[in-house]
Amino acid sequence: MATQQRIDLVLGSVRRLLRIGATANLLNLLQKQHPADLAQVFGELVDKEREAVFSLLAERNGRLAMEAASELGPEAGAALLATHPADEIARLAHEIPSDDAAALIDYLPEELSAEVLALMRPKESGVVENLLEYAERTAGRIMNPQVFGLSEDMTVGEAITELQTSRDVEMVFYLYVVDERRHLVGVVSLRRLLLVSPETPLKRIMTADMISARADMDQEEVAGLVASYNLLAIPVVDEENKLVGVITVDDVIDVIKDEATEDIYRLAGVSGDERAFTPAGESLRKRLPWLGVNLVTAFLAASVVALFEGTIERITALAVFMPVVAGMGGNAATQTLTVIVRGIALGELSWSNSRKALLKESIVGIGNGVVLGLVAAGVAWGMRGDPVLGLVLCAAMIINMFVAATAGTLVPLGLRAVNVDPALASSVFITTMTDVFGFLSFLGLATIFMRYLGQGG
Amino acid sequence: MATQQRIDLVLGSVRRLLRIGATANLLNLLQKQHPADLAQVFGELVDKEREAVFSLLAERNGRLAMEAASELGPEAGAALLATHPADEIARLAHEIPSDDAAALIDYLPEELSAEVLALMRPKESGVVENLLEYAERTAGRIMNPQVFGLSEDMTVGEAITELQTSRDVEMVFYLYVVDERRHLVGVVSLRRLLLVSPETPLKRIMTADMISARADMDQEEVAGLVASYNLLAIPVVDEENKLVGVITVDDVIDVIKDEATEDIYRLAGVSGDERAFTPAGESLRKRLPWLGVNLVTAFLAASVVALFEGTIERITALAVFMPVVAGMGGNAATQTLTVIVRGIALGELSWSNSRKALLKESIVGIGNGVVLGLVAAGVAWGMRGDPVLGLVLCAAMIINMFVAATAGTLVPLGLRAVNVDPALASSVFITTMTDVFGFLSFLGLATIFMRYLGQGG
Repeated sequence: MATQQRIDLVLGSVRRLLRIGATANLLNLLQKQHPADLAQVFGELVDKEREAVFSLLAERNGRLAMEAASELGPEAGAALLATHPADEIARLAHEIPSDDAAALIDYLPEELSAEVLALMRPKESGVVENLLEYAERTAGRIMNPQVFGLSEDMTVGEAITELQTSRDVEMVFYLYVVDERRHLVGVVSLRRLLLVSPETPLKRIMTADMISARADMDQEEVAGLVASYNLLAIPVVDEENKLVGVITVDDVIDVIKDEATEDIYRLAGVSGDERAFTPAGESLRKRLPWLGVNLVTAFLAASVVALFEGTIERITALAVFMPVVAGMGGNAATQTLTVIVRGIALGELSWSNSRKALLKESIVGIGNGVVLGLVAAGVAWGMRGDPVLGLVLCAAMIINMFVAATAGTLVPLGLRAVNVDPALASSVFITTMTDVFGFLSFLGLATIFMRYLGQGG
Repeated sequence: MATQQRIDLVLGSVRRLLRIGATANLLNLLQKQHPADLAQVFGELVDKEREAVFSLLAERNGRLAMEAASELGPEAGAALLATHPADEIARLAHEIPSDDAAALIDYLPEELSAEVLALMRPKESGVVENLLEYAERTAGRIMNPQVFGLSEDMTVGEAITELQTSRDVEMVFYLYVVDERRHLVGVVSLRRLLLVSPETPLKRIMTADMISARADMDQEEVAGLVASYNLLAIPVVDEENKLVGVITVDDVIDVIKDEATEDIYRLAGVSGDERAFTPAGESLRKRLPWLGVNLVTAFLAASVVALFEGTIERITALAVFMPVVAGMGGNAATQTLTVIVRGIALGELSWSNSRKALLKESIVGIGNGVVLGLVAAGVAWGMRGDPVLGLVLCAAMIINMFVAATAGTLVPLGLRAVNVDPALASSVFITTMTDVFGFLSFLGLATIFMRYLGQGG
């Protein structure tokens, strides 16, 4: 059955059982679900239902409740937890790996999170607090500190025994080998262990040349390493190359999704950490600066129009078609900009091969301008019975779409070359340019050919 | 050393060795690189250099050359291959797993790809052809058909022996168990094999309740399963539940990246399969329809302006501030739209919790409108010395940003409810609405309050 259908079914049952108060049946149903499915069900419930279901589950099956909260994402998960007293949160936090617990606790209200950390068993709390000490968005923040490090003096047989006795380690597929001071010295794959005799020393079969991440490395860079080298996990080391944790590929997938969201957001001038349910006040504060910058550029475009007020006064039809020139330039620029910014993000595009991209975009821009300009000219001629107005509109559109194409290519590449995020700053520049050049070419040409223009002449 | 720095170093050396014709040294350097790094180096070289380096490597180390071509992406990789004769491509294609070979061969010019398939050893060619028979963007297309299926009658000891003798299987971490007719009946993790005695039958330790993907399932759905259930690999079955392949998490990461690109592209009206170096003619053909739709809506906005030509004739200052109202509405709408569309894509938002999102966006829209409207009013007053013009501008901006917020929320949610991709269609609707309502409110209010407006009265 398709997942969404199954989730809708479960959702319906959960709501029904909750309404009639069939607690035992509800609990039974919940316990059969995968944490990821529960998280989706939680997402569809209204606040009150969600809290009731979570409380029920937290009481009877703390681990599943916490895994679901964790899958729901740290913000929403912490909001669910925050309705519970600190001692219960501390108890629940022990049920999941400490990196996941740290992510949730970090999003609790400050006082509550301090209380929870104080209540957790000293050792556990230490681990969580250590994780929270790493800067946000670094490898240290997302790693699992419970990493399996084997001594380089061990044999394969001893390593297997060690593995058999430590059941709590998250998804093991690589075994990291450390020296007596816990410096990372090698890696052995689980599969390799099966292929050699138990007496073989680990040192003999380990790979010493391996890829690791520093704890202070940016999480995007870590994700890039895991993705390009097709790794299942990457060991995390401190500044002395001591093994301090491991990041598994499932955490990397979350980072890649976040990164994509950030790229999409930046093109639209939205802050990376905003979500659909960020409180209105916070969203307002975050979106205003971007709109403020755009207001300045809008007035810049307005000043260009003001230069030609005399022309508009004589031929008001120009005011009618102004939005067509600016709007089409803006749309064409957005297309170019998106392809170029994404090409940069995916590493396909850089200064060195930018000439080819510029040539291509210029051709596309002029081509689109000619086709759409001719259509627009025909429509304008039809609407106003003035062929010269149509020609001016057509010429202005070709010019503006060429400007859109070249600026849409060069601005992000230029920003990248001076180390400014092209997704963030490009669209302001581009919108300004297509507005300014659109009005300048349209109203400028109209002024030059004023005496040929219909009623205005 | 940071990866980019290392790649720049390698790149410099490659260029230098190529220039002085030091083939042996160049080959030596290339062979020390990881395929992913080579792909990055290839990406930075100009076409001629890239072909020379690839040819050299293909001759001496076909596997590494093909792995690098594969990492470069199917389009760019196939372009490199296409400069070689068919028999050499066929020889090279054997060097990598058949799913990767299929992806490259699929992008070769049609005649060449048919020739290559005919030249490959009958069995291998069959596998590649079979993969190409699955529809694009399905599980069947991206799976590896060389999947490890163990009989349910085997013991753990026999399974380990089987594993030891088949060295060519891609990254194994789960072992799939099949019945005598190759129906998928269970899964055993590699780690579990280590924890039990060799005599244990697989049947006893396997998990029968597992997640699998149908070969005709959409690749995005497969990626969703792997990501939400934190899998390292997912078995692919045919319509009779027979095991036909496996998809590993590294392939899923590529799908997630492609999916994000598609989302970003759709918001900008760019076709999902366009890349920075898509030929100009193809790009033009793909972008025109979207711009055509936008041209229609631009003329709709123009018709609204035309309704008020009389007003503009009397007060030409209105033409100056028209772009400010429309532009700011468009920017605010883009912000809302992006947050809502991404919220839908990430599964955080649906009809059921849309009222909360609508309320929030309305508040943000009115808030932004008031703040920016007042600033704009002040500037306009200063520029033209007309306080009433400023007030009309302010009121129009508040109205338009409220329209932007509500339309930006309701249109994508509504499209989603009727199963239209919200990313694809929303921005046309929204731009039209903010243009139409912007001009309508600004010019309409100006017409109503005409006799209070400065010089025009």
